[in-house]
Amino acid sequence: MKFMEMLRNAWRNSNSLVCVGLDPDLKKLPEKVRETEHPIFEFNKAIIDATAAEVCCYKPQIAYYSGQGADEDLLLTMRYLKSNYPSIPVILDAKRADIGATTNMYAREAFERFHADAVTVNPYMGMDAIKPFLDYAEKGVVVLCRTSNPGAKEIQEVKTAEGIELYKHVARLVAGPWNYNGNTLLVAGATFPEELGQIRTIVGDTPLLVPGIGAQGGDVEKVMKNGMDRNGTGLIINSSRGIIYASSGDDFAEAAGKATRTLKETINRYR
Amino acid sequence: MKFMEMLRNAWRNSNSLVCVGLDPDLKKLPEKVRETEHPIFEFNKAIIDATAAEVCCYKPQIAYYSGQGADEDLLLTMRYLKSNYPSIPVILDAKRADIGATTNMYAREAFERFHADAVTVNPYMGMDAIKPFLDYAEKGVVVLCRTSNPGAKEIQEVKTAEGIELYKHVARLVAGPWNYNGNTLLVAGATFPEELGQIRTIVGDTPLLVPGIGAQGGDVEKVMKNGMDRNGTGLIINSSRGIIYASSGDDFAEAAGKATRTLKETINRYR
Repeated sequence: MKFMEMLRNAWRNSNSLVCVGLDPDLKKLPEKVRETEHPIFEFNKAIIDATAAEVCCYKPQIAYYSGQGADEDLLLTMRYLKSNYPSIPVILDAKRADIGATTNMYAREAFERFHADAVTVNPYMGMDAIKPFLDYAEKGVVVLCRTSNPGAKEIQEVKTAEGIELYKHVARLVAGPWNYNGNTLLVAGATFPEELGQIRTIVGDTPLLVPGIGAQGGDVEKVMKNGMDRNGTGLIINSSRGIIYASSGDDFAEAAGKATRTLKETINRYR
Repeated sequence: MKFMEMLRNAWRNSNSLVCVGLDPDLKKLPEKVRETEHPIFEFNKAIIDATAAEVCCYKPQIAYYSGQGADEDLLLTMRYLKSNYPSIPVILDAKRADIGATTNMYAREAFERFHADAVTVNPYMGMDAIKPFLDYAEKGVVVLCRTSNPGAKEIQEVKTAEGIELYKHVARLVAGPWNYNGNTLLVAGATFPEELGQIRTIVGDTPLLVPGIGAQGGDVEKVMKNGMDRNGTGLIINSSRGIIYASSGDDFAEAAGKATRTLKETINRYR
């Protein structure tokens, strides 16, 4: 099944736009989990089981695995998701891009080694630097457009000679020529809801991955008002720290489930 | 020792501006090597021993390791370099950038897990997305500016309202406010020597990493004429495929050594 179809089914079946970011920092995990052989995987497994009924997506951030020498925990997590929750799409957050021969290797990393359904990529090097991802027509390719961090404006809000900000130029490319396989999405941070609305106007019904809710301070109401597509969906609203660290005690999974339900309900109030 | 000092020493001691890109594709390795337990490491080791006297840098591209499940080969390669050629700086080509908490993990990947002396990063998300790298004052941070691939122009040559191309705006940031620790470098592709010259004018003596010589078709004479700094150095000229696959037979290391010497001499003709 194509990623876009998987995503639409997941939106409908879960009645949720929530994506849980699986970004486990070993130092922050509860002691009970830290004592196991694969603490990061055990943590993820508990979080997944507690949240799966309430989400449309999962999004592991690869740096938390490669930076902690925990590649195997990522693989175990991906296998666990594919075996137990095969209908929930998984976006590998990697923000890759490079010359074609190298991106071929990154596509193998994301799609073959780690079995992701979609991957995040960086537009700075142009389309040919992400083409090996785009050519996997059944996979999703989520291109950075307006990111949620404060410094993003240094590049993304540069005004072009055409009179628009650079992120709008990127939005046009991603929803236009780069979408030759109908498999592109964009990143639009919750912390800049005005810009998110501008992106929605440019890209029509192209889905948006929205980080920045929760720990980063994004506002749900504004995101919903500015970001929904014509069908009341079109958004993948990610929360990582706000969910996975909802409790630092042994009840972390239960607390994560509760935080996910609360976020889902808050979001659905505005649909 | 700081990366910049290490680099200047390496330029002087080797009398070379050549960097060898360690981008080993398992399918292209000679049979003799493929039969060993760690084929990618064995290949790199032979290439390194044959070229170390002629280079100022090595640059492993991380996608070739993560995409082929060869993280251990990368670690073995880095350890081999640090044990046997500790004065040659190693740039991990990773093109990372993300929100701060995540980039912290990427900095651990590059500098702690894999012991790199410098790392390549992507500027699209702004300075705060690479700050955890910049904060390692003794390490080098090589920021993409004008890359060597044809599609780079879609973003990097967008004219800003100020009347300059975006890559020049990036060059100013990288050599200006982002250089608060004096540890930034820039990527300027050999395939666009005019733009490389423009970057040199903007960034003064900031070193440039120059990919695109060899398989990608960049012109050595133009690169040298436009790219050298006032001291006749300032450039790290990378060749990957043109060196590591100089021969596909059992004489691959010898051929790599010869190709490296030839490139070094060609470059030095214009210094």
